Amino acid sequence: MSDMRSLLRVGSTDPDVPVDLAAIDPNSTPGLPGRKTTGRDPKVWARAELELMGAELATQQEMLFAQATVEPQLGRSVLLVLQAMDCGGKDGAVKRVAGAMNPLGLHIKAFGPPTPEERRHDFLWRIRKALPPAGYVGVFNRSHYEDVLVVRVNGLAPESVWRPRYQKINDFERRLVGAGTTVVKVMLHISRDEQRERLTQRLVDPTKHWKFNPDDLDSRAKWDDYQAAYGEALARCGTDEAPWYVLPANRKWYRDWALAHLLRETFADLNLSYPQPDYDLAAQRRRLEADG
Amino acid sequence: MSDMRSLLRVGSTDPDVPVDLAAIDPNSTPGLPGRKTTGRDPKVWARAELELMGAELATQQEMLFAQATVEPQLGRSVLLVLQAMDCGGKDGAVKRVAGAMNPLGLHIKAFGPPTPEERRHDFLWRIRKALPPAGYVGVFNRSHYEDVLVVRVNGLAPESVWRPRYQKINDFERRLVGAGTTVVKVMLHISRDEQRERLTQRLVDPTKHWKFNPDDLDSRAKWDDYQAAYGEALARCGTDEAPWYVLPANRKWYRDWALAHLLRETFADLNLSYPQPDYDLAAQRRRLEADG
Repeated sequence: MSDMRSLLRVGSTDPDVPVDLAAIDPNSTPGLPGRKTTGRDPKVWARAELELMGAELATQQEMLFAQATVEPQLGRSVLLVLQAMDCGGKDGAVKRVAGAMNPLGLHIKAFGPPTPEERRHDFLWRIRKALPPAGYVGVFNRSHYEDVLVVRVNGLAPESVWRPRYQKINDFERRLVGAGTTVVKVMLHISRDEQRERLTQRLVDPTKHWKFNPDDLDSRAKWDDYQAAYGEALARCGTDEAPWYVLPANRKWYRDWALAHLLRETFADLNLSYPQPDYDLAAQRRRLEADG
Repeated sequence: MSDMRSLLRVGSTDPDVPVDLAAIDPNSTPGLPGRKTTGRDPKVWARAELELMGAELATQQEMLFAQATVEPQLGRSVLLVLQAMDCGGKDGAVKRVAGAMNPLGLHIKAFGPPTPEERRHDFLWRIRKALPPAGYVGVFNRSHYEDVLVVRVNGLAPESVWRPRYQKINDFERRLVGAGTTVVKVMLHISRDEQRERLTQRLVDPTKHWKFNPDDLDSRAKWDDYQAAYGEALARCGTDEAPWYVLPANRKWYRDWALAHLLRETFADLNLSYPQPDYDLAAQRRRLEADG
């Protein structure tokens, strides 16, 4: 098994050189073993392996949660930050991958346009409030990166405001990691054609109409501007402490499989285990037995 | 199929007469079709039907969420309140039943002993803050009922403080329901013997040690007091607006199956459907086609 993180990682070599998203094929499947290796159709195999990984992720999540009940002062948590163009598959990935874990240990937050109250605060204010508590796996569906993406592309703030945010984000994430949170930032990368397919689906399938927003077509018209804004954010904020991964996401089955792998490797680094009891096991057993 | 809600509902006839939990067999399986009807082993059949219901619940939840994106002013949400003695299976039920839904649409809150900040406020303060937003399915793992259960049994407040809370809870829940939230309150009912089995497991299985808390044995020693406190809370707060259900929970497979059924009936009453688009479908289709 290849190391998914090194295959998908971007940025960090030179923060001044934007990541060229056009050079990453959204149809590609880095790290996926071929039919010769697995003896199966890749899609069928990936879906089956996702099932197995789901159970493993659930166990890792439980160990993270269990350790935090015994050692909350470590402040250990995992935060998955998901970004994508519209229809990039953030919701589907959360459903499939986070959905395999225990919902009791998930801390999911979707960020929309800031409310009037949020607008009165620094852009990181609402982000700080939504961070996962110790022991939890947090998922940000969109994030503080919108403040250097949609804000930049649509001119919602002048450059003098959004440009310093790259550095503010890096400082914020460094402190977050220092306080015990493992940060995994994933951009689900789809092609412009794939986006049209998915937008069309939303306009054709009555059970999907609600997912469509006319604003999506305005954003689509600014595709190149968004890709450029992503390219710069990925380069400037793809740090060693909180790396950025670009995950080819035209194929949903690959997207889910690869995301689960990224999380599995992340958990593996944490060397989690079930904690030792912080009470006298033998004494408690005797007490329970005596009680009849 | 019987109506699970009428089979499991308690209280509301005379609020002054406590519900007699001793009269409800924790091993019973109300509403479960027998082997003659299904042609299957009941446990196997219930687990399989839970799978099917999980997919239905996920669809209902998506419709609830979708409607709220179009008509947030309706404020529609569902709140499942779970209470039980220690080891009653709240966590397992959430994992199995809520876990079948999309984690993006869940709003789960576990209530522990109140923090110093929470103690400085009215007992409903932290509850209000944790209510599900419109479109969400909320789950309370423990709840404001602890304020008439553990508080009463352990004398954490005088009767002059906890007794008026039944009425305060009823007023609070009536307003909540009036504002669009469907409230489903479920007590998972296990026997004292089953609790010993499960506590023993936690002391035997190293992957479960973290779930054990020596306080659990103190609570166990007050079993009868707790059952009495539950009996009064169920009677006083089992209202027509926000009924209480007692779900026999010694058998985990029945517990999950019956809880899913309760939720399914709850959703059915909401008559949910995917919303009509609030934009001009034809115009948006033309726009997308023109864009190439």
